[in-house]
Amino acid sequence: MTVNDVKTALFDPFFCPKSVAVVGVSADENAFGTMYLRALLKFGFKGKLYPVNPRLDSLLGLKVYPSLDDIPDHVNLAVVSVPARAVSDVLESCLKKGIQSAIVLSSGFSEVGEEGKRLEEGLSSVIAKGIRVVGPNCHGIYSPGGGLTILPGSSFPQDSGPVALVTQSGQFAEMIVLQSRGLGIRYSKVLSFGNAFDLNEADFFDYLAEDPDTRIITAYLEGVKQGRRFLEVVRRTSKLKPVLIWKVGLTNTGRRAASSHTGSLTGDAVAWDTFFAQSGAVRIESIDDLIDATIAFLHLPQPCGRRVALAIGSGGGTVIGSDACERSGLEMPVLSPEIQKRISSLLPRTSVRNPVDLSNPHPPAEVLGPILESIAGSEQIDVIILGRMFLSVKGPGLVFGFPKNFEQGREELKDIPLRIKEKFGKPIVMVLSEEVTDSEMIEFEADRRSLRNYYLSHGIPVFPTIERAVKAVAHVVKYQERLRT
Amino acid sequence: MTVNDVKTALFDPFFCPKSVAVVGVSADENAFGTMYLRALLKFGFKGKLYPVNPRLDSLLGLKVYPSLDDIPDHVNLAVVSVPARAVSDVLESCLKKGIQSAIVLSSGFSEVGEEGKRLEEGLSSVIAKGIRVVGPNCHGIYSPGGGLTILPGSSFPQDSGPVALVTQSGQFAEMIVLQSRGLGIRYSKVLSFGNAFDLNEADFFDYLAEDPDTRIITAYLEGVKQGRRFLEVVRRTSKLKPVLIWKVGLTNTGRRAASSHTGSLTGDAVAWDTFFAQSGAVRIESIDDLIDATIAFLHLPQPCGRRVALAIGSGGGTVIGSDACERSGLEMPVLSPEIQKRISSLLPRTSVRNPVDLSNPHPPAEVLGPILESIAGSEQIDVIILGRMFLSVKGPGLVFGFPKNFEQGREELKDIPLRIKEKFGKPIVMVLSEEVTDSEMIEFEADRRSLRNYYLSHGIPVFPTIERAVKAVAHVVKYQERLRT
Repeated sequence: MTVNDVKTALFDPFFCPKSVAVVGVSADENAFGTMYLRALLKFGFKGKLYPVNPRLDSLLGLKVYPSLDDIPDHVNLAVVSVPARAVSDVLESCLKKGIQSAIVLSSGFSEVGEEGKRLEEGLSSVIAKGIRVVGPNCHGIYSPGGGLTILPGSSFPQDSGPVALVTQSGQFAEMIVLQSRGLGIRYSKVLSFGNAFDLNEADFFDYLAEDPDTRIITAYLEGVKQGRRFLEVVRRTSKLKPVLIWKVGLTNTGRRAASSHTGSLTGDAVAWDTFFAQSGAVRIESIDDLIDATIAFLHLPQPCGRRVALAIGSGGGTVIGSDACERSGLEMPVLSPEIQKRISSLLPRTSVRNPVDLSNPHPPAEVLGPILESIAGSEQIDVIILGRMFLSVKGPGLVFGFPKNFEQGREELKDIPLRIKEKFGKPIVMVLSEEVTDSEMIEFEADRRSLRNYYLSHGIPVFPTIERAVKAVAHVVKYQERLRT
Repeated sequence: MTVNDVKTALFDPFFCPKSVAVVGVSADENAFGTMYLRALLKFGFKGKLYPVNPRLDSLLGLKVYPSLDDIPDHVNLAVVSVPARAVSDVLESCLKKGIQSAIVLSSGFSEVGEEGKRLEEGLSSVIAKGIRVVGPNCHGIYSPGGGLTILPGSSFPQDSGPVALVTQSGQFAEMIVLQSRGLGIRYSKVLSFGNAFDLNEADFFDYLAEDPDTRIITAYLEGVKQGRRFLEVVRRTSKLKPVLIWKVGLTNTGRRAASSHTGSLTGDAVAWDTFFAQSGAVRIESIDDLIDATIAFLHLPQPCGRRVALAIGSGGGTVIGSDACERSGLEMPVLSPEIQKRISSLLPRTSVRNPVDLSNPHPPAEVLGPILESIAGSEQIDVIILGRMFLSVKGPGLVFGFPKNFEQGREELKDIPLRIKEKFGKPIVMVLSEEVTDSEMIEFEADRRSLRNYYLSHGIPVFPTIERAVKAVAHVVKYQERLRT
């Protein structure tokens, strides 16, 4: 058996169980175990489901078993949602039943203080007997290929994608997957792992590094259990695929919060600076940053050069975009005199050196097209960022009271970025901002989203602000530069 | 005549003109002058409008005059949109007509290089004769009280509010006002001032400092014309009202862009650090930051203490919120043992020290209410930030597949923050995030916006992320702390 076979054997029951026992369901429909069961049913888990509770006969249309022993079949995975002090006994009965994999949803362990810490350490002896545990204090595992979802992830996408998410916070699993869903990001596996008493972040990364279904690994971490091993695993992994880590709890107050949340020791800020310098992981700073970076890694070519051209429909936008590029360490080469001349001939009296000021957010297609072609044709430029354009029929141009022929021109403009990308094989990045925030004008946001989907479905990354676009591009550029050094 | 009388006399024609001549309209409906005229008409300017063009008889239902001289009445304000080289002559004819105030929309001046710079300097002689100019290379002035708007601001709100905006970028005037509109931010005056050849940022601030209609001054600046005077004016102004300045163009690439945009010398980054340290102005970093800070200054009490309590419906949220508070220099005092005990009795086994982990985003009203009351009653706490709550009927709770009684509970939850604010007179800040990004589920965003409006209309500031909420609160706290030192 190879090392990979061992990992597969370890994780297969967690990601693709044929039968799942849910221990600790109850008649209370808001109980964690019951919510978990409902989520699995609604999500459409295809395997067998065995709820366990000695005081119930049936729940949600399923027969409830008094104990694990009473289940007539083999069970691959136990999902445990009993009070903390009963978890150890449940794990013992899992072993008796031949179950070697358990997800412990129950909270009340090291995150609640000394007593909980003792309870958590008390799990060691049963774990030593051969059962592997994800959790405690987690929301489970989402693995669309295996029909498995987390609590309460019944509405998560049914289809898989190339992104994995490893997160200590269960709710962030939900937030991130849900925010991602509308942006076309799909996941191979999402692990909510809470206190990580047994299996921990290093185990997950170690597995995902070799997982053929995973092309990008993302993570939300409060603390790590095996710092040295984690550094080694991430260093190795990030050579194989991008690793995006959002590490929180690096202030005193954040440490206090993390300790009460997942019982984590969050570590020292300087040590984490070193970790990021040495591991090759991309350092993420917020949920928006995580999602933006994921979009950038999904859609930008790799490697991606650092030489950016900005084409922005607003002079102010060219200034803030330029500031953002330089601060992110991207380059904005001055375009060649020939290209400058060409742009000037199309759009007189505007900035043409790079940034290119498109002067207004609704240039005619016969101006925008050739300008972008000139830029894309330049050997000095690796990426084009196009922003502050009204490309949408219902776009804010109408709010501003633009001319009647405005609508007509939009359809032509809309496809120019696609053409550029195809013709030059050069990445183009779009900024589509939420211009109209009025509640009663929600159709503008609907229109922006449909335009955003249109570009995303054509492999063109879209961001809501110039600064976020620049930051996301910089993540990709720098990740690859670090790999090469 | 007092100094203030002089300022009023100077600025009145710009903000409340009784008659406006638009010089440089054309039959081309996309021409700047024509678009400006259309915007004014659509916005509903109540005074007299005199378009000027020797080759047109009428435009948009108005009689067009061959020259300023031909206008039979007195004119307060000229809006000039002729080619750059003709601007000087137009200003001369303004003087002849007795017009002492002009907004010059025309571009092609110092922002386009040496020739333009000479043209701009050529305006000195006519300005010396007594006409005052806003611009060139700008989009005009929005002054709802005077019925005046900028190009293309026909859909700007008709009602005034306490915020002024001074911006070198005309398009940012539009973006900021439009983004603000849906958030209940209303403006007293918005000045788009471009190259600032005559009247400049210091003049505008000097006026707005005394303007009784303006309670908060916001600004987007690329460069300043009179650095030393500007520092003095801002130092004086920020003692009277909050001054929020977004200064851009402080990188080399940003400088290049600003120079091509408004011909600005953006200055040295260190000098600007000193400016912010000495002036008392709030340093803004992006359009979102500007809008968030405006909301915070509008709705938070002043002074506002720095001691924050976080109550968040997600453990991960408590960690990132805590990190954000400490990094922003806010304090998060540990709650008293009594209050901790009280919260624990309502919500066992969760973090109660501060942050308070509400454990899930949909606690029952009878839990959330008393918890927030306990916190608000604490003398240790100045501000409460409440986040990661599903308070909306159509909220993401439904997507997650929450229990059927979920909807029913929402209405009760929704008003708890209002009650807390009223009962304790203590500010409460809401975080309402965009959880569901799918195009086809736009109703969730519509619902979020209506909930956001509900709170804003009750004086409760709302932000889309915890980090942005913390940053906005910190702006208010620190502004006032600087004032007191």
